[in-house]
Amino acid sequence: MLNELIEACLGYRECDLVVEGSFFNPYTQKTEDGKIGIYKDKFAGFSNDLIGKTLEIEGILIPGLIDAHVHIESSMLIPREFARVVLPRGTSTVVCDPHEIANVLGKEGINFMIDDSKASPLNFFFLAPACVPSSNLETSGAKIDSKDIQELLELEEVIGLGEVMSFPAVIDREPKILDKIRISKEKIIDGHCPGLKGKELNAYISTGIISDHECSDEEEALEKLKKGIYLMVREGSASKNLHDLIEVIKEVRGRRCILVSDDRDPIDLRREGHVDHLIRRAIEEGIDPELAIILVTLNPSEYLGLKIFFPGTKADFVIVDSLDDFNVMFNIVNGEIISEKGILRINIPEYKGIYKNTINLVEVSPKDFLLTTDKENTRVKVIEIVEGQIFTRKRIFLMKGNELSSDIERDILKIAVVERHRNSGRISKGFVHGFNLKEGAIASSISHDSHNIVAVGVEDTSVARAVNEIIRIGGGISCVYGDKIISLPLPIGGLMSHRPVEEVSNNLETLNETIKEMGCDLKNPIMTLSFLALPVIPELKITDYGLIDDFQIVGLEEPDE
Amino acid sequence: MLNELIEACLGYRECDLVVEGSFFNPYTQKTEDGKIGIYKDKFAGFSNDLIGKTLEIEGILIPGLIDAHVHIESSMLIPREFARVVLPRGTSTVVCDPHEIANVLGKEGINFMIDDSKASPLNFFFLAPACVPSSNLETSGAKIDSKDIQELLELEEVIGLGEVMSFPAVIDREPKILDKIRISKEKIIDGHCPGLKGKELNAYISTGIISDHECSDEEEALEKLKKGIYLMVREGSASKNLHDLIEVIKEVRGRRCILVSDDRDPIDLRREGHVDHLIRRAIEEGIDPELAIILVTLNPSEYLGLKIFFPGTKADFVIVDSLDDFNVMFNIVNGEIISEKGILRINIPEYKGIYKNTINLVEVSPKDFLLTTDKENTRVKVIEIVEGQIFTRKRIFLMKGNELSSDIERDILKIAVVERHRNSGRISKGFVHGFNLKEGAIASSISHDSHNIVAVGVEDTSVARAVNEIIRIGGGISCVYGDKIISLPLPIGGLMSHRPVEEVSNNLETLNETIKEMGCDLKNPIMTLSFLALPVIPELKITDYGLIDDFQIVGLEEPDE
Repeated sequence: MLNELIEACLGYRECDLVVEGSFFNPYTQKTEDGKIGIYKDKFAGFSNDLIGKTLEIEGILIPGLIDAHVHIESSMLIPREFARVVLPRGTSTVVCDPHEIANVLGKEGINFMIDDSKASPLNFFFLAPACVPSSNLETSGAKIDSKDIQELLELEEVIGLGEVMSFPAVIDREPKILDKIRISKEKIIDGHCPGLKGKELNAYISTGIISDHECSDEEEALEKLKKGIYLMVREGSASKNLHDLIEVIKEVRGRRCILVSDDRDPIDLRREGHVDHLIRRAIEEGIDPELAIILVTLNPSEYLGLKIFFPGTKADFVIVDSLDDFNVMFNIVNGEIISEKGILRINIPEYKGIYKNTINLVEVSPKDFLLTTDKENTRVKVIEIVEGQIFTRKRIFLMKGNELSSDIERDILKIAVVERHRNSGRISKGFVHGFNLKEGAIASSISHDSHNIVAVGVEDTSVARAVNEIIRIGGGISCVYGDKIISLPLPIGGLMSHRPVEEVSNNLETLNETIKEMGCDLKNPIMTLSFLALPVIPELKITDYGLIDDFQIVGLEEPDE
Repeated sequence: MLNELIEACLGYRECDLVVEGSFFNPYTQKTEDGKIGIYKDKFAGFSNDLIGKTLEIEGILIPGLIDAHVHIESSMLIPREFARVVLPRGTSTVVCDPHEIANVLGKEGINFMIDDSKASPLNFFFLAPACVPSSNLETSGAKIDSKDIQELLELEEVIGLGEVMSFPAVIDREPKILDKIRISKEKIIDGHCPGLKGKELNAYISTGIISDHECSDEEEALEKLKKGIYLMVREGSASKNLHDLIEVIKEVRGRRCILVSDDRDPIDLRREGHVDHLIRRAIEEGIDPELAIILVTLNPSEYLGLKIFFPGTKADFVIVDSLDDFNVMFNIVNGEIISEKGILRINIPEYKGIYKNTINLVEVSPKDFLLTTDKENTRVKVIEIVEGQIFTRKRIFLMKGNELSSDIERDILKIAVVERHRNSGRISKGFVHGFNLKEGAIASSISHDSHNIVAVGVEDTSVARAVNEIIRIGGGISCVYGDKIISLPLPIGGLMSHRPVEEVSNNLETLNETIKEMGCDLKNPIMTLSFLALPVIPELKITDYGLIDDFQIVGLEEPDE
């Protein structure tokens, strides 16, 4: 192969494809004209001496787009279906941390993701999930211990340790997490440390963690960059940080900055795109297209230790109409034309495998969601949603009477987490502010990171019906509105569908429209709901053990001041 | 250790040293004030909460300096003595390709270098020499084959394959070199391809070669950068490319540009310095000090995949008086204060080992250097020296008479290469233009890359005496001037001395002064001489097999036009 590649470079051997036109060079950040050769899956150089079938292009050729931090599960699609959506968008490489499925199915789930990824030509890299479960404040379906990490790191597809979310555990020098870090020290170790700064941040970084994608303000981002962290600027479906961090990117001219999607739902993927959307967003925010491209090509390649876009590297290119408009015309991955004008030119086989029902739970009833108190006046902790963010605020509301129910006037709704892995019967209850439902309930078996069933609703009867619908469909999302029950089945781990994105996103849109009719004006209520049970994110969250504040289980009732 | 480091970061445990003052952050390219902690050999972060013995500094703290491409042997010092000179200059890390000693002693020589490097705290990385011998156009003392490369790559100290000089062999797909490249494909593969461009350059790069330090003009440098190559801009004792490439560095704002010394003689090391000199030179050429520092810290760290200058990385720092003047006040390597104001604060033991005489040669006589012809008029090829470069030009001179002797009027001097590894008796002869000696001779067993004895002189008797002096001292450099014979013994491989730099450089200065008295006005005649036998560099060179032009052995006589 090396001999043949050299011959192709020299023009002694036909390339499989020669592309002629303008291309953007990430190393000089300039656009120039010429020919680019592809021999098998490799790039055979820029040269006018290349021979072979020539494709003259309009538009501009750029390196293949990389998403250096994404949880595929958030697309509600299995890897091959995710690939089917993002390939026509110009993505060539994704780095996945399959910690959602790992929370449900452990190593079995991770192996499913790796196996399924092979059905598509998208370049998938995996990270071994570091924090499964994300904390001991919730019940997950599985655990990933040090031994599992070691086994996973031996797989060719696994290039490092996934986001170390339990930063308090690192700072507290808990042996379990330090062990996982030690095992991974020769590889990439992804970070996750929202709001961490000063000496605690130093301590966290000192273990070898090298990235963070949780910055939400400039000061935080600059401090992390200064301390050697690769700044992953996230613009996902739930959390959007690009606008707030754009000035930092400009200040350091993008050095060691990377745009990532982290979590992207199927509607956004289908409507807006994937990494191509990140580029368009960065341009909208005032970054030159040339620099925007660097943020999702050269920079992540350096982070990953991948060589890109020169002779001998994998022939991963995208042809866009123009750098300013950035519409993807062709995507070429591993030397193969994968898509043209948004249409796949290859066949990705449908998933025909079996899957097991992971909803291990018997039917619930309205009384399971009842909340009572002896007092006449109760100060209750309420989770306040911050639109567009996965962190929340803690609010205190005074509630009257012995039964604590939803109060639609003040937008205080009941929220519950139903343990669904072990049929323990554990159901926690609390309140949330920000959903603004006027009736009905929503439930979901997507509920980061343990993926118990999280439900929010006005009447306990609706909450129970929504949860029971999740049981019936073997996992997914449900919505109860008057007499109507509508749902999106996600039978793989209760997280993903094996159906095409069109079906999944249409279903999801119907759910969203219904939720809107129910009064909710959040942009993405289902994703918002799904993050309310993630105890590693501040301030107030809820798991099957109850309300969580600052890594502690706290009572619903707030003591008097 | 990880626990302790975290505790030190958090201020729960005393650091071994806390440095307080201004520091330059390579990630933001800005200078700020604060405290930096050192715990054991690691950096414990920037924080005012650090506790421990505090050193308040004047000046500015910057990351330790890295020379990403250097042949230690060119310093004529063994590694520990090289370290003794460069440590007070702020160097913390060097990447060495020990291909000089490998040409003489093979793996035994490389192992000597690795072992000796351990006597000093300087961080040494090694590359396995790719081209020993550099070609089949010369006789070396040893060979390094694929099996040797494989064995060397298994050593912890060996991080990749050294400069692949035989670029024609790569382009010609010679199995031996492609094998070495294949074996190294997961590691760093250093390049060396002066003047290579277009499709041949593509072919060369397509094998996985990732750097080049041989660019001499802007066009060449830009083409290489564009094609993904790390541009190592060399400013050594023999070759100086910084001035010619400075605009390229400015154009790409230094991205993927690295300053390297490649070859640095003991006088320059002692007088001008090492990487600190590269920085001062870059500043002289109009680059901001901040960017200059990046070129020898962050950029080579990214090239090497080393993490630097943040919590948990090796505590390698330099304190300089100011970024503009760039005088090194302190060098801290692996957390230890190594030097203060140019004075070493640690003990590096003297070398007490044994070494073998590698000059395997019986005495020569003047008649061995005689050149005769049948013709009255002979057009001879003459090597023309280009001052400050290691490449040469090919010139044709007409010589009269049956004996072809040096002609001091036209500065045509006899040059000879005497094979010295196998006592083969092979002696090649030719002419060189540019030395301008008016009498006497110079000889050296440093003669890249095979390190036979190369000699230049006016009278054959002087040439023979100079060569015999090399035999007497067991390798080194000699000079015959009238009745005087002066020499610098380099008993280790005929390349290096185990004596301190002061003695070696004084000796060398005496030789240089004498050579100047003999009429030569080259800046560095001995180093220039030592590169005239390197056949992989264009245009005309001489090895023990004869004159070499474009990788071919050619006759002395140039056919009539």
